[in-house]
Parts: sequence; structure tokens; C-alpha cells
Amino acid sequence: MIDIKDRVRNKALHSKIVTAEEAAAIIKSNMNVGVSGFTPSGYPKAVPLALAERMKKEKFKINLWTGASVGSELDGALSEANGIARRLPYQTNKSLRNKINNGEIQYVDLHLSHVAQMVRYGFLDKVDVAIVEACAITEEGYIIPTTSLGNTASYVQSADIVIVEINTTQPLELEGMHDVYIPMDPPNRVPIPLIKINDRIGTTYIPVDHDKITYIVPCDRPDVTRSLSEISDDDLAISSNLIDFFNSEVKHGRLPKNLLPLQSGVGSVANAVTAGIVRSQYTHLNVYTEVIQDGMFDLIDAGKLDFASGTALSPSPEGLKRFYENIDEYRNKILLRPQEISNNPGIARRLGVIAMNTAIEFDIYGNVNSSHIMGSKMMNGIGGSGDFARNGYLTIFFTKSTAKNGAISSIVPMCSHVDHTEHDTDVFITELGIADVRGLSPKERARVIIKNCVHPDYKPMLMDYLERAEKATGFAHTPNLLDEALSWHSRFLSTKSMKLNG
Amino acid sequence: MIDIKDRVRNKALHSKIVTAEEAAAIIKSNMNVGVSGFTPSGYPKAVPLALAERMKKEKFKINLWTGASVGSELDGALSEANGIARRLPYQTNKSLRNKINNGEIQYVDLHLSHVAQMVRYGFLDKVDVAIVEACAITEEGYIIPTTSLGNTASYVQSADIVIVEINTTQPLELEGMHDVYIPMDPPNRVPIPLIKINDRIGTTYIPVDHDKITYIVPCDRPDVTRSLSEISDDDLAISSNLIDFFNSEVKHGRLPKNLLPLQSGVGSVANAVTAGIVRSQYTHLNVYTEVIQDGMFDLIDAGKLDFASGTALSPSPEGLKRFYENIDEYRNKILLRPQEISNNPGIARRLGVIAMNTAIEFDIYGNVNSSHIMGSKMMNGIGGSGDFARNGYLTIFFTKSTAKNGAISSIVPMCSHVDHTEHDTDVFITELGIADVRGLSPKERARVIIKNCVHPDYKPMLMDYLERAEKATGFAHTPNLLDEALSWHSRFLSTKSMKLNG
Repeated sequence: MIDIKDRVRNKALHSKIVTAEEAAAIIKSNMNVGVSGFTPSGYPKAVPLALAERMKKEKFKINLWTGASVGSELDGALSEANGIARRLPYQTNKSLRNKINNGEIQYVDLHLSHVAQMVRYGFLDKVDVAIVEACAITEEGYIIPTTSLGNTASYVQSADIVIVEINTTQPLELEGMHDVYIPMDPPNRVPIPLIKINDRIGTTYIPVDHDKITYIVPCDRPDVTRSLSEISDDDLAISSNLIDFFNSEVKHGRLPKNLLPLQSGVGSVANAVTAGIVRSQYTHLNVYTEVIQDGMFDLIDAGKLDFASGTALSPSPEGLKRFYENIDEYRNKILLRPQEISNNPGIARRLGVIAMNTAIEFDIYGNVNSSHIMGSKMMNGIGGSGDFARNGYLTIFFTKSTAKNGAISSIVPMCSHVDHTEHDTDVFITELGIADVRGLSPKERARVIIKNCVHPDYKPMLMDYLERAEKATGFAHTPNLLDEALSWHSRFLSTKSMKLNG
Repeated sequence: MIDIKDRVRNKALHSKIVTAEEAAAIIKSNMNVGVSGFTPSGYPKAVPLALAERMKKEKFKINLWTGASVGSELDGALSEANGIARRLPYQTNKSLRNKINNGEIQYVDLHLSHVAQMVRYGFLDKVDVAIVEACAITEEGYIIPTTSLGNTASYVQSADIVIVEINTTQPLELEGMHDVYIPMDPPNRVPIPLIKINDRIGTTYIPVDHDKITYIVPCDRPDVTRSLSEISDDDLAISSNLIDFFNSEVKHGRLPKNLLPLQSGVGSVANAVTAGIVRSQYTHLNVYTEVIQDGMFDLIDAGKLDFASGTALSPSPEGLKRFYENIDEYRNKILLRPQEISNNPGIARRLGVIAMNTAIEFDIYGNVNSSHIMGSKMMNGIGGSGDFARNGYLTIFFTKSTAKNGAISSIVPMCSHVDHTEHDTDVFITELGIADVRGLSPKERARVIIKNCVHPDYKPMLMDYLERAEKATGFAHTPNLLDEALSWHSRFLSTKSMKLNG
């Protein structure tokens, strides 16, 4: 058993060590609580569980602000205790999602790079309490984060009260893997001095006035990370199409031989894509992304990765074990940054990031829905896709051509919700092919997308829509039949299929 | 009569002086022609008119790439001569718009800051010919631009052939008002070193290898600028609401006393807004925008402007006269930059630009349509609004609550085209009020927008839609009735009114 006093190197702070229950007691109804955590990694666990127990008895709610999704000890426990009034900026928890979609929880779905500065600007009210998972506290009283950085540093800076959970399952070797940089706010902001993926521009710790550290709580619960999604044949076909596209771009001189910094979302398609890159001829790769998963270790082991920068280290349970076992090697190739920096659109544009994200659906004119199911229900949120997509060097969206065993076409006449506009997208890839729509007008885009990306079951229906819309509008710029544009989604809601004779 | 040889200071280039007809003869069918010009300012006139004459006889088309909208001698003459196959990235010309909306011209509607780098990256094919309006050519053979900078420098850099029109109506005092900076491309790009609005980071001229200058053509046609749109009572009310909003933000410490750099679109609302700021108590203002119009001269004359940075100087005919008469004073307060810099999202975020743009329509959930009429027809394009809106400090959209004498509600259940997503917008202002939607969920946003911004004729209809959508979807995150969401637009197309008993 590790004594957490060994990890609280500033001895004056030892007097602040309390139980999770004692710390949780400081949190009152309607407070804004900012927490560490991004994907299920680096989030506080002990205090939230204690808080959830109090909520069950005392019936009160808080506003919960995170980096992105967090583990079930936080989003699950608090939403099940009916303890969340307002939640931002991203989530993936089933219980929480249900309450977002039944009116119980107000959810604010934000670009992930925007959150910290919105807090500092005072646009979201102040952070009453920050709860932060840490590896250790330094002699100076500064916080060493764990497996994610997210919005933690800004929440700590803005909070009145800081509760630090020292997680003894997180290895001390994580120290040195973070680069904490908080930009000055306008009118005093200067260029963020990051030029190369591996540039260090900040500190390895989160600076904090230690008077603000109100409680320190021990925690021995590990990150409950997700297993890797299984890779299907369709995922492999998407990955293979991507490599073909890269090969063509390199051949035509539009990408260097080692590509440009890669950003990739999470999920089975993203896993397949990374696996495809591991198998490909590309070497000296760089990654500038949000979430670092198992594939990065594969790239390092294959000698193909120069460096990976992210804001969260979120491998599978097996991947986490592998990381811990080889931490001395992997830590030299990986840096975690605040999500304001990892996802910064200006830096994505400067570095020339290749933005690769998964769409729920896209339409024939190149608009993308990343967040909503059938126009009304929230799935997870936009996440970081908007941070990267608009300002990437190349903006690629993936999806399987159909969902629900073919009952849904992922390519529709009009998106039922738009998260990325036609002005933001370059390339669409399904298991069936690649639609490169750069420099094309909407009517041209529609034909390339229908031809290359759409499932045969839906191809004639989409061509029919396009041709009738062209005639009805006199070949307007973006021909749409307004009475029909969303009818595919309506039909699915009433017949459980987008097909005409579903 | 000015001899253009006085303006071509590099004497070796005198041999390249030809007539517009001789220069236009080098342009062949299907060429990509990149021109100077942004709003009707600084665009070439003599060569395009000569080219249009050739097109009428020889029946051929080119692809025309500009900075943004250009004058009728270019967009008007070439489209009327059936000479444009493809056009990007923005336009406002009636003849051109008609052909975009009848299938004759392929139009690619792009974020204005993206164009130059897309050309350099090779995503849009190469520039065959650049036609550039200039004040003068320096001793070194470099080009001094005129009243706009736009994409000119990148088109010149990328072109095989450069034609320079020396416009003798443009005063030589324009020399020194430009700051030409072309970023290196990834993986070699470094931070753009602009920290203050008035920082000079480049050259006062466009560098060019003078072997590429193939022809030099005299031109004595002035910019055909647009008269100021008349300011209505509704425009004044919008402007007054904006000042109220600024006052409140300053009072709450969310904006400094001299605000932050202002970006503003063009048109009657923008004019009213600038006029309102001139009359307000605010001083030491800074402007970081695309287009500099008459209002800037008013701000300078009132002693309220510290500095204005833009990419085009596009005042009214009277404003242009005023500018020329006071050029020695005004030129110290104004700098023109490439649109890749004036509209750079990373710089907008760094400086903390207050992005103020006019919407065609927005919906109750905070999505904005800036480009399309009733879902299909192109109006002008997204322009620079997306460059500023997503990454501004504050993102404000204006519109009058109704259009077409009340037959159209500018606030609808669902936008018929989305250019700015719900994730990008902070504040909506109509003549009726201000909806500040920061930190709100979609259902909350809907209530604030309906209450504060919607015309009384449409308020009950929108509340009815919202409440029925909530019930039908079980209070889903973004409640929508897919069969009705676009019915307001459909109804307008069939009955000429969005009202139920129109």
C-alpha cells in the first residue's frame, strides 16, 4: 500500500489530506464543478463517487464541466444520482445521454478547444470547485497530472477551491510527460510558440497557489478505459482507401513522403486507420491529435513514429498495461498538452494537420453531421472534430456507407444536423470508395459522392433526388426539394428504414 | 495624361507595355486566371474588358479566381460574355449569380482565408495567368498594389504568366499602405508574427520574378465602388442593441473599456453599426477586418480609432474621394494585408476579434445561414464570416427579424442551409432585441431567441413548433419535427409568405 504522503512532496500540504467524503462535503447545490479528465482517463474517481452518495441522500445538483468524456464513476454515478443540472462540453455516457435526451440535463456541446478560454473570459460563470486527479504534488505545491490534461490547468486557475485526488495506481513516470501552457487572454495574447510537434512550451506541472488546494484525497481506482472496438471488414476497407488516397497525394506532390501530422478520432474506424498506417510504407510519422490510443504504441514499436502530441492517453486496458510496462521508452515519444493547445485551430493550420474524423452522416453536398441522431437526439457531441476539420491541411471524414444493417444510408439528401459545413470538407471515405470534393461545386460534389461512396441500395434514390431537385430549382447552386430533403430520416423514424419499401 | 512609364520604375520592363487587347490575347480557353480585387476595389479592368470582347467572338471560357467580389468590368463583363466556366471564392454580381443558379457556372464557395493556401498546396490546380492591378512597379520590378490585397500575392507567386495593369487613377500615396506576408507552407510554417493590429510583418510590395511579368497594360478606369446602403430605423435599432450589449459586457468585466478589435461585414446593418460606434463613448478602438469603408474615416475624424487593418479599401464613391483628399492622414491609421492574414482564424483568436456579421436567417437553436435563399439558391457566399465567427472572442450575428415586408421570418425552425453551426455562435441581435446564448443548451437557446429576437407575427408559430417538437421527441436535445422543420421555406416558395394564412 502506497502512503500518499510520499506523493505529496510539499509537507505543509499533508494537513489537507482527508477522505473523499470529507472533501465531497464542500460541494454545494448549483456549484460549477470543473474536473480533470478527457476520454476515460485522468478523471477524479473517489470524490465523485462520494459526491454521488451525498446526492442520493440530499437531493441536489451541480453543473459538471470536464475536458471531454469521463468515466462512469463520474458521468455515470452523478447522472444516476440525478445530480447533474448542466453538463459541458462532451460526453459518451449512456445514462447521461438519456437524461440529455429527455430534458433532465441541459447539455452544452462545445468545440473542445473553446472551453478553457470561455471559462477564463467569464462567459460560463466561474469555476466554484476544481477536482483534479494527480500523480503527485511537487515540493513547490504544484500538481502533476496523470493520463490526461484536458481543461485541468484552466479549471484550477479559475477555481476558488481545488480538490486534488492523488491516484496511487498512476505511475510516477508520468511526471515529465505533460506540457502545461495557458495562453494569455486578449488583448495580451502572443503567438503560441509551438512550431514542431515535440516542442515544449510550458511546464511539466500545473501551477497553483497552494492556499487554493483545500483538500487532498487518496484514490486507488485505476482509469476504467474502454476495450478496443473490433475492426470489421468495412473498417479495413475504409483504412485501405485512405492509404490509397495518401499514396496518390504523395505521388502528385501534395503531401510530403512522411505525410503531415495526423489527427484521428476514436472508435473502430480510427483504430483500423491507425492499423493501416502501421502496415503501410510510411515512416517518420508525426501525430498531433487529442487522444493517444494503442495504435501509437504499435507505431512506436514499428519504428515509424517520430512523435505524438495529444491531450489524453487513453488506450485499452491491455494497452494501458503495455504502456506502463514500457513507459520508459514510450514517454520519450509522447507529450500531453491542454486541449486548448492540442486542439488549437491556429496550430492545426500552422502544422498542416491531416484531420481524420468519423461522421454520423454526410449529405450529397458535403455537409457533415457528427452529433445528432435523426435531427433531434444527441449522440455524443461535436468533440474536437470542428477544431481540426476547418483548419486542417486536409479534412477527411469517414463513415460506413450504411448503418443498422442497411436500414440507414449514411449519405443523405440533407443532413439532419450540420456540425461541419460544405466549406470545411475535402474528402469523404466509405468502405466503397473515396470522394475527393476539393474545388468542386455542390452539384459536382453530389455526383462524386454518390458515385464513389454510396451503397448500391441508395445510389438510385440519391441520383433521383439530385436530378429532380435540379429540375425543380432550375439547376440552382445547391438543388434541394425542401419537402423531401429530410424525408429519409422521417421515413426511418416511422418505418425503421430509409428504404422506400423498407 | 499620366505616362505609365513614370510608374514603371524598372526601365527594363518598359518593353513589356502593351495594349489591353494584346495582353488579353495570351489567355486561352480553360485557363485558371487569378486576379487581384476584393469587393469592388483593386481589381483589373482593362484586360478583363478586352478579354470579354474576345470571348464574345471566339466563344471560350476560363476559370476565374479572385479575392472576393470584383467589379462589373470583370464578373459582369465575363459572365455576360459566357466566358466563366468556374468561379471562386465569393461574388456579388447579378449576372454571375443568375448563371450560378441556372447551372451555367460552377461556383466554389470557400472560406476566404483558405483560398491562397489551397492554391499553393496544389488543391485547385495551378494559376495559369495572374492579372493584377498595380499603382506602380518599383525599381526592383516589384508590384505596388492598389486598393486591395486579397489573394494577389499568392496568385502572382503561383502563376506562370503575370499581367500587370497600371491604374493611373490610383494615387501613388497608396504605396506603403500594404503589408505583404505569405506564410511558408507546412511542414515549414512558423507562427505568423502579428501581435498588434498595426504590426508590419511583410513588405510594402508584392515580390515577383520579373521574367514572369509578361505584359504591362495601362488602365485609367477608377474602381467602380458601391454607394452606401441607406440606413433604416431597423438598422439603427440593431446598432443601438449592439451598443447596449457592449456596455453590459464592459460593465461585467468581460470586455475591456476600449473593447477588442472589431470585425464587421458590409451592408446597411454594418454601416449602421459603425455609425453607432462613432456616436458611442468608446475610444481607442481597433479594427481587424476585411473591408474598410466610410465609417473608418468617421472613426478617424472623431479621434476614436487607433488603427484599422483590412484587406480592401472599399468606400463609397464619396468616401473614396474623401480618402484621396485626406490620404496623408488616413494612411497612417490603415494597413492592407493579404486575406489569408486579415481573415486568419488563428490571428482572430489571438487578437480576440469581435466578429460581427449579417445572417440571411438563423434558427431557434443558433445555426446560421449566410449564403443560400430557401435552401437552394446562392445569394453571395459565405465570404469571410466563417474565418472570423468560429474563432472570434465573441461571435455576433445580426439580421432584421423579417424580410420581404414581413413575408419571411429571418428566424426559422431550421436553417435551410447551415454556414455557421450552433457551436460557433454567441449572440444574436435583431431590431427587437439581443439573444445571448452563451452557455445555453439548445432548448434554452430557442426560448431566448424566440423571446428576444423574433417578430410578433412569428413568435407564437415558433413557440408552437418548439413545444410540439419537444413533446414529439420526448424533450430530445435538439427537438425537431422533420416533416415541418423546412415547411416555412416550402410555404414561402408556394404562397410567397411564411405565414400560415399568408
